[in-house]
Amino acid sequence: MQNVYDNELFFDEYQSMRAKKVNANTMIEVPIMKSLLPSLTGKSILDLGCGCGDMDKYFISQGASKVVATDISTNMIDSAVRLNADAKITYMVMKMEDLEGLDQKFNIVYSSLAFHYIEDFDKLLSDINRHLNEGGLLVFSQESPINTATSKTSKDEERKLNANGKTYYLLDGYCREGGREIFWNDTFVTKYHRTYATIVNSLIKNGFEIVEIIDSYASEEAIKADEKYKTQLDKPYFTFVKAKKIRKM
Amino acid sequence: MQNVYDNELFFDEYQSMRAKKVNANTMIEVPIMKSLLPSLTGKSILDLGCGCGDMDKYFISQGASKVVATDISTNMIDSAVRLNADAKITYMVMKMEDLEGLDQKFNIVYSSLAFHYIEDFDKLLSDINRHLNEGGLLVFSQESPINTATSKTSKDEERKLNANGKTYYLLDGYCREGGREIFWNDTFVTKYHRTYATIVNSLIKNGFEIVEIIDSYASEEAIKADEKYKTQLDKPYFTFVKAKKIRKM
Repeated sequence: MQNVYDNELFFDEYQSMRAKKVNANTMIEVPIMKSLLPSLTGKSILDLGCGCGDMDKYFISQGASKVVATDISTNMIDSAVRLNADAKITYMVMKMEDLEGLDQKFNIVYSSLAFHYIEDFDKLLSDINRHLNEGGLLVFSQESPINTATSKTSKDEERKLNANGKTYYLLDGYCREGGREIFWNDTFVTKYHRTYATIVNSLIKNGFEIVEIIDSYASEEAIKADEKYKTQLDKPYFTFVKAKKIRKM
Repeated sequence: MQNVYDNELFFDEYQSMRAKKVNANTMIEVPIMKSLLPSLTGKSILDLGCGCGDMDKYFISQGASKVVATDISTNMIDSAVRLNADAKITYMVMKMEDLEGLDQKFNIVYSSLAFHYIEDFDKLLSDINRHLNEGGLLVFSQESPINTATSKTSKDEERKLNANGKTYYLLDGYCREGGREIFWNDTFVTKYHRTYATIVNSLIKNGFEIVEIIDSYASEEAIKADEKYKTQLDKPYFTFVKAKKIRKM
């Protein structure tokens, strides 16, 4: 159970990265997540890893009836309460691993870029299943398996090589799943690498039907804002999943 | 519609590759495909891209009631008739693209390492759907998306680099789908790269529920036969899909 966001240095670096108007979240992640959401009118939503609550406020603006927004980090929940309070949103400090303790069901479970911090994906999905109404939706983003397979880790700094005007990546262990200690914002963070096949198989095993899987892509607008987003075609930052509960667990 | 197997030089090279007792088919592909099959007793099977018919003979040995085995290559069908004839097997020269012309339904559609030659995956899957009984199974293998993304092509010979005792790959265009002209057995062959996401989405769109996806792995026996199969953990050769027809098309 990692809580790097309560490490002050990490939190400051993270906040200044997110404060830039052009970043991978605003230009790539958020638009794709929004495109995967159904009409939110009258829907109840559980947000796992809500960060500063920007999306929770958005859910309410789109007609959601109730949002429970959780994060492992007290720093994050403090910011959310300060920046995005609303009578229909309940913010709470909670580890995703403790989800079974929450006694409510929802129409939608939403999670942005947090599942790659979770070691036991099967347990997470079966807990989520039990917090969804029949036919409820799970919409999540995570680092792309292509990305976690090639990430720069603390043990191995040489994950990519530039040659012939191109970038070559170490695919070391695409099928070797598990924790990767990654150096990010001057801190070591453990991200869990899982293959596309495992993501699909775990969803099926835990009572979900997949509606759609998307690898991140850059819109024309994103590429106009920063040319580097063209590399999404080579190595997508994120993978997005929309899935529907079809069986009880 | 490619038929490199009727190019005599290619066919000879291919046959001598397959004649080796230890090859990626016998050590990796065939065992995983067999593991994905249900009990075959009394089942009718359509085999798309049957090659020399080894698997078709196997299906009969496992109790299948009827096999229709097709291949684009006359060379392949001639070999199959010579090597693996059986009263319950019908071998026919047929392009997978012409499947709609076949007027029969089956319990199982099987295809080994052929779908990556097909440009229009959606059409192929909807044709297969129409040739399956309700609840029928599709079991196929193809080159892994990780593999087609990094393959050596005729246009770009430098798809990998050795450095630091490791192999780095060009992931150029993982999300850039479409034909890749690949140099294989002294011939140019076009293989179609599709992402995992596209494979999943196309199956769903064409009336299938995914049962399981597997990336190739090497058994202890395979690694004992040839140490090079250890690299399956880094970059799997093949991806396997088992899917069930749940909707008519």
